[in-house]
Amino acid sequence: MAGQNQGVGQVEAQRAHFATPLALRSGGVIPEYDLVYETYGQLNAAKSNAILVCHALSGHHHVAGHYADQPDNVGWWDNIVGPGRPLDTDRFFIVGVNNLGGCHGSTGPSSINPATGKPWGADFPMVAVIDWVKAQARLADQLGIDAWAAVMGGSLGGMQALRWSITFPERVRHAIIVAAAPKLSAQNIAFNDVARQAILTDPDFHGGHYYEHNTRPVRGLRLARMLGHITYLSDDQMGEKFGRELRNGAFSFGFDVEFEIESYLRYQGDKFAGYFDANTYLLMTKALDYFDPAREDNGDLTATLARSRAGFLVISFSTDWRFTPARSKEIVHALLARGRDVSYAEIDLNFGHDSFLMADPHYHAVVGSYLARITL
Amino acid sequence: MAGQNQGVGQVEAQRAHFATPLALRSGGVIPEYDLVYETYGQLNAAKSNAILVCHALSGHHHVAGHYADQPDNVGWWDNIVGPGRPLDTDRFFIVGVNNLGGCHGSTGPSSINPATGKPWGADFPMVAVIDWVKAQARLADQLGIDAWAAVMGGSLGGMQALRWSITFPERVRHAIIVAAAPKLSAQNIAFNDVARQAILTDPDFHGGHYYEHNTRPVRGLRLARMLGHITYLSDDQMGEKFGRELRNGAFSFGFDVEFEIESYLRYQGDKFAGYFDANTYLLMTKALDYFDPAREDNGDLTATLARSRAGFLVISFSTDWRFTPARSKEIVHALLARGRDVSYAEIDLNFGHDSFLMADPHYHAVVGSYLARITL
Repeated sequence: MAGQNQGVGQVEAQRAHFATPLALRSGGVIPEYDLVYETYGQLNAAKSNAILVCHALSGHHHVAGHYADQPDNVGWWDNIVGPGRPLDTDRFFIVGVNNLGGCHGSTGPSSINPATGKPWGADFPMVAVIDWVKAQARLADQLGIDAWAAVMGGSLGGMQALRWSITFPERVRHAIIVAAAPKLSAQNIAFNDVARQAILTDPDFHGGHYYEHNTRPVRGLRLARMLGHITYLSDDQMGEKFGRELRNGAFSFGFDVEFEIESYLRYQGDKFAGYFDANTYLLMTKALDYFDPAREDNGDLTATLARSRAGFLVISFSTDWRFTPARSKEIVHALLARGRDVSYAEIDLNFGHDSFLMADPHYHAVVGSYLARITL
Repeated sequence: MAGQNQGVGQVEAQRAHFATPLALRSGGVIPEYDLVYETYGQLNAAKSNAILVCHALSGHHHVAGHYADQPDNVGWWDNIVGPGRPLDTDRFFIVGVNNLGGCHGSTGPSSINPATGKPWGADFPMVAVIDWVKAQARLADQLGIDAWAAVMGGSLGGMQALRWSITFPERVRHAIIVAAAPKLSAQNIAFNDVARQAILTDPDFHGGHYYEHNTRPVRGLRLARMLGHITYLSDDQMGEKFGRELRNGAFSFGFDVEFEIESYLRYQGDKFAGYFDANTYLLMTKALDYFDPAREDNGDLTATLARSRAGFLVISFSTDWRFTPARSKEIVHALLARGRDVSYAEIDLNFGHDSFLMADPHYHAVVGSYLARITL
């Protein structure tokens, strides 16, 4: 059995099928779909102790633990989930789900389109955050969960938590929104568009139907990930970790790796391009761009959030320049303007946007103590 | 004749040939080379009134004025050069030069390699800032200029001014260093490497010998420029100028231009990719990465700058996140530590790194009044 410091241990992914078509924000329809998910801990008899953990751009359902046949494949947020950890599996039932459009088992562009018998590819409809939330709500129905004790996520995952609180106010008792923003800035969109253009203009993209050409736009995907990594880290942390350290001690005056930072970025780019699906990457970045729930209220976030009934915990990180603390405060201020119950913490951590994934004791204490106060 | 508000008017580029080989920092040698340059104003009898303006990443020798046959092709820093302007052509003789390795007329990768009769392409040796300064010094020799009244530049151009003051202390009376840094940070290098990888992995790059394939790596160059533009502008300015404005008023849920910022970036990328040489772009970004004059003194910038004899004007911009004011202050502090004559101004301007190109009255007054105090 897993002890205090051992996490959730061995886990297994599950699969849910949904035969009812899902109408999407984009006007498209998914006729039927699968969602893969994992759960940790036990759902109590009242079904009141469930926490949904939403993933970010490149995440998936494997939040914690490891698989029997892949002991080193540890979940992406393992450090926060487990017995005695902030998302305490002795008390809560945790659900992680791969979003619609993903490439880790849920229906997405690399799945077979039942209408053609071939992979969806570029024909997979554009999905928005609200679509994910609706798909997740159907999963909650299947699991018998009327209301989540909490919906939680970092970055794009935090946007899903925010959207849950607006679209299904009666089904979210608490929303924990980490390192997120109520909408992207022009600069955020700009970075996304460069990443997308890298993929879309890769000759191996074939208009999104690369599966049929037995190739993948690895060059574009690699560039997109390299660029992404720059925005995930802080300038300071990059400086401390890599500085101007040279790979071979002296300048080589060529285009191979010269500085350690180049080695790091290219490695991260190659690794990601080796397994992630480019069409999914495109869809996820577009979902980020479109996210702007206040748009439904002519930009008045206060009015939008007035529809929520949840308690809120909003967390930002001092060195996050992708979604700065000021962006989190936009959410906090809009909630306060309507007298909503909101706690806010700005955590001083040096890891930029990626701070939300780190096992910082202060950060984890904020999450843990908030969740410990939730009555079930 | 040009009046107070009319700039330098019609100008003509000139060409200088250098038959003596130039040994480069990279170990390579350029057997012979041309530099194209322009001059504005009159060199005085004592040849004591010359100012060298050094260009940045994508700049060139056409600093001010326009050509007889291209009235709309106005120099990139025209707003600061002319009668009554900060670089006052009634008093100073201004020289702009396209650097070695460039693609605007000076010898570079697209020039013919005399050894092969074909374009240099990837065989053009890596050039460093110190090489440019040495090449510029030979141009000064040809023009009979023993010492510059000032060497001035923004960004990579400011680095050349700094390098001049260290390598030829007796030939630089004043150095004006705008929006620069004593060396790149890991984040700066990271952005450069993504841009380079975009070009190097473009199938049309052909190992740098694309001239012979009658093609150009326009996809990679376009991505590099799009990315560059994000780092040239401030987040705030992008927000004010573009925000989340939609091109067509509503979401189209596709990969064509959706937000105005995407339109702007793609336009800038396309325009640049249409005329700039990819090999030159690679060389210029590498020159940026390598620039680190204090490396010769084990990282002690104070010791390095102790070799200079110039008066210094250092200028930074509040919203420049490529080279923040803190980076300029590194130069200022190192100069002050040795009791050097240095003036420093941080200008509050909203245009990010590109602020150095703007005709801001306060900024221009700082430059103009500094230059007005120079005795000739």
